[in-house]
Amino acid sequence: MPIPPPAATDAPAQLDLAALLAAPLPGTLKGLPACAEDRPLAALGTLGLSLLADELPLPAAVLKESALAHNAAWMRDFTQRAGVSLCPHGKTTMAPQLFQRQLDAGAWGLTAATAAHVRSYRRFGVPRILLANQLVGRADLDLVWRELEADPGFDFYALVDSAAGLALLQQALAQRPLARPLQLLLEVGVPGGRTGVRSLEEGLALGRLLHRAGPAIALRGVEAFEGVFAGDDHARIELAVLGMVETVAALARAGCAEGWFAPGEVLLSAGGSAFFDLAAQTLAAVDASAAGRALRVVLRSGCSLVHDSLHYERMQARMRQRAGALWGSGPGLRHALEVWAHVQSVPEPGRAICTAGRRDLGTDAALPQPLAWYRPGVHSQAQPAPHGWRLSALNDQHAFLDAAADAGTGPAPLAVGDLIGFGVGHPCTTLDKWPLLHRVDDHYRVLGGIRTFF
Amino acid sequence: MPIPPPAATDAPAQLDLAALLAAPLPGTLKGLPACAEDRPLAALGTLGLSLLADELPLPAAVLKESALAHNAAWMRDFTQRAGVSLCPHGKTTMAPQLFQRQLDAGAWGLTAATAAHVRSYRRFGVPRILLANQLVGRADLDLVWRELEADPGFDFYALVDSAAGLALLQQALAQRPLARPLQLLLEVGVPGGRTGVRSLEEGLALGRLLHRAGPAIALRGVEAFEGVFAGDDHARIELAVLGMVETVAALARAGCAEGWFAPGEVLLSAGGSAFFDLAAQTLAAVDASAAGRALRVVLRSGCSLVHDSLHYERMQARMRQRAGALWGSGPGLRHALEVWAHVQSVPEPGRAICTAGRRDLGTDAALPQPLAWYRPGVHSQAQPAPHGWRLSALNDQHAFLDAAADAGTGPAPLAVGDLIGFGVGHPCTTLDKWPLLHRVDDHYRVLGGIRTFF
Repeated sequence: MPIPPPAATDAPAQLDLAALLAAPLPGTLKGLPACAEDRPLAALGTLGLSLLADELPLPAAVLKESALAHNAAWMRDFTQRAGVSLCPHGKTTMAPQLFQRQLDAGAWGLTAATAAHVRSYRRFGVPRILLANQLVGRADLDLVWRELEADPGFDFYALVDSAAGLALLQQALAQRPLARPLQLLLEVGVPGGRTGVRSLEEGLALGRLLHRAGPAIALRGVEAFEGVFAGDDHARIELAVLGMVETVAALARAGCAEGWFAPGEVLLSAGGSAFFDLAAQTLAAVDASAAGRALRVVLRSGCSLVHDSLHYERMQARMRQRAGALWGSGPGLRHALEVWAHVQSVPEPGRAICTAGRRDLGTDAALPQPLAWYRPGVHSQAQPAPHGWRLSALNDQHAFLDAAADAGTGPAPLAVGDLIGFGVGHPCTTLDKWPLLHRVDDHYRVLGGIRTFF
Repeated sequence: MPIPPPAATDAPAQLDLAALLAAPLPGTLKGLPACAEDRPLAALGTLGLSLLADELPLPAAVLKESALAHNAAWMRDFTQRAGVSLCPHGKTTMAPQLFQRQLDAGAWGLTAATAAHVRSYRRFGVPRILLANQLVGRADLDLVWRELEADPGFDFYALVDSAAGLALLQQALAQRPLARPLQLLLEVGVPGGRTGVRSLEEGLALGRLLHRAGPAIALRGVEAFEGVFAGDDHARIELAVLGMVETVAALARAGCAEGWFAPGEVLLSAGGSAFFDLAAQTLAAVDASAAGRALRVVLRSGCSLVHDSLHYERMQARMRQRAGALWGSGPGLRHALEVWAHVQSVPEPGRAICTAGRRDLGTDAALPQPLAWYRPGVHSQAQPAPHGWRLSALNDQHAFLDAAADAGTGPAPLAVGDLIGFGVGHPCTTLDKWPLLHRVDDHYRVLGGIRTFF
């Protein structure tokens, strides 16, 4: 039976954000207005800045406070209903201020993708990190070892998916022993997929090898990233996701029965932001009480706090359909992230060129699309982007906005100087383009700044 | 007749890099080894670090010093042969240290894409900036106006491509007058393209409007970005490029004849890194001596210092063919940029998963490809990546390296812990993923660090 996530009365970890908030904002930050240069980050929300008053140099990225607050609460409620813990992937935002929000909302820890991420998180005091990756390379090991050596309270986990990887870790531990076992999760993959063992049989063999690996290694659970599946054939993909998560469950059961796991909770972890309902339901149903073991199911979904308006929004619609009562009421997560740009030229009827490009907007899951439109001096609030507007291409620093004629009404009335708000698919690859994002209210007034460390 | 670029004896601008070099390297930089944390940037090259000794956490990005030095000299020699000036697009690297190298090699100025770029450049003291874009928006104008107000020696140019854009600038100048005219270049575009007037006729109309715009506006020349054309039909594209550049030349001639341009040199500028031979040859042939005007041809090619191994390398092969004597001898520019990663898993025969992803490598012009391979303890130097190795996909933090069997020889012998060096197509969208790059010698020993400000 899974252990429930920490009760709301448990004190969340307090990250050390003071230096970040006190650091002056350098004049090399895009989106930073002149009046905020060299002011401390903590002061950005006190300047009375407004995006719609054209007080931010564009492009600028914004995070809507109302969506952040809603999403943090929604995900806390979802994981409580599901009886699972959340260890959100910090690589989505690399923003310590947002890490704090996630910990405040009850996150069990934070997930990292690289050893460099682990070091970054530690600089802000993150107490528990799941490195959802294999750890290889002398300098990468050095980064992690130093953190483990510096703080006996640092709770760290990494993945292992092969005997070769295990051998390299054992070699490193022999050369530079740690005062406590290195905690590992056995990674499950699929044929043709990314990392991870390819079958239950490979997993059993690796689990037994880990069991015999000696006291420097502690196998603490089983992990998979079920987000490797993509495409439009939902039924087929969901079946594949379930199969992958079932392999995690089967290996957890086998490991409990055969005594592979180190003392303490056995962790069952799944990763993505598109199928976390399936992962939660399947893994929360695993029962190891016969073997006397307590399980903790750990979701690592990274995109839930920021969400998006194209890719995960579409995945969420499907999730809502299939999750039933577990979903709760309401539509779910809301997009928090928008990138705003000016119309700099309307060189042909129906075509506007805007001041944002692939340096500002990610394109890997979908081309960004216009969500909102505002004309200074004319509109009193942001308007929904008219039906038919479509971003058709991005250059490095330019967006091609096709404002197709609505039936019979002629070209949409875009003008030089208009403001356009774009929504994205897949927040990770837009957030990493912004060292500073503006946290805004629903009227796009700046409440504060969020720094990222990509 | 064009004015030649500054003679080598002209003292290049000295940017203020002291604070940058003295600033400690924070532990939030990827690619930064533990021993370099909190050391000044200037010290990075003194630590005896070696990529191949596995002393950098990976992924890490490197710039080869030999290629940077070669490319800076090559481009200086090319522009001197062509009788044109170089105002390289700084958006490629956003690296003040590399800006200094470009100015040291005789660059006339630096090109920017946004008002925020202009501010960033000015923080390091760049004395002449061509904003190769329309300037719109109150806060963006504020950034530029402040720099113009702060330094009467700051030589600044921006683009204009419409009466609407001109009207917004005039309105801004009326509300907040500058002590000198705002220098503009008339931008030429093509139907279906990006910004710029769509025809010679539109250009003539706008030129005449600019001529009558009053003393706050100084029309200083004509500009185009001929890199809007892309595809594999070289002959058709080159014809289109020539047509576009010919329109620049025709408008320059018309403007000289009709007296549109403000006193001083008339600037003729073209932009990209794929056709700069065609732009240089066409524009350098413009003769305005009958109108008593001196012309300066300004290329803005941004990628020449770093180059790449896939996209511009392919474009260069074509350029070499067509440029004849202007090209000079030798193959031309060399790729300076590589991103290195570890093999973290070999989960199936012939498939390796590496520790770099689309957070580290740009994909817009081509999927990055493996160039080099190194196995610590086995290889004495980096090996060329075996024929048949191919990067087939990128996730955010992972690369899928397919090490296809060479005919009859079985799977390539990739192992966990191997180092792989990737080359890219289009340096801009890889450089922007790296706040710190290592400048290395040909043995991948670290000579110093390059900071970027995206």
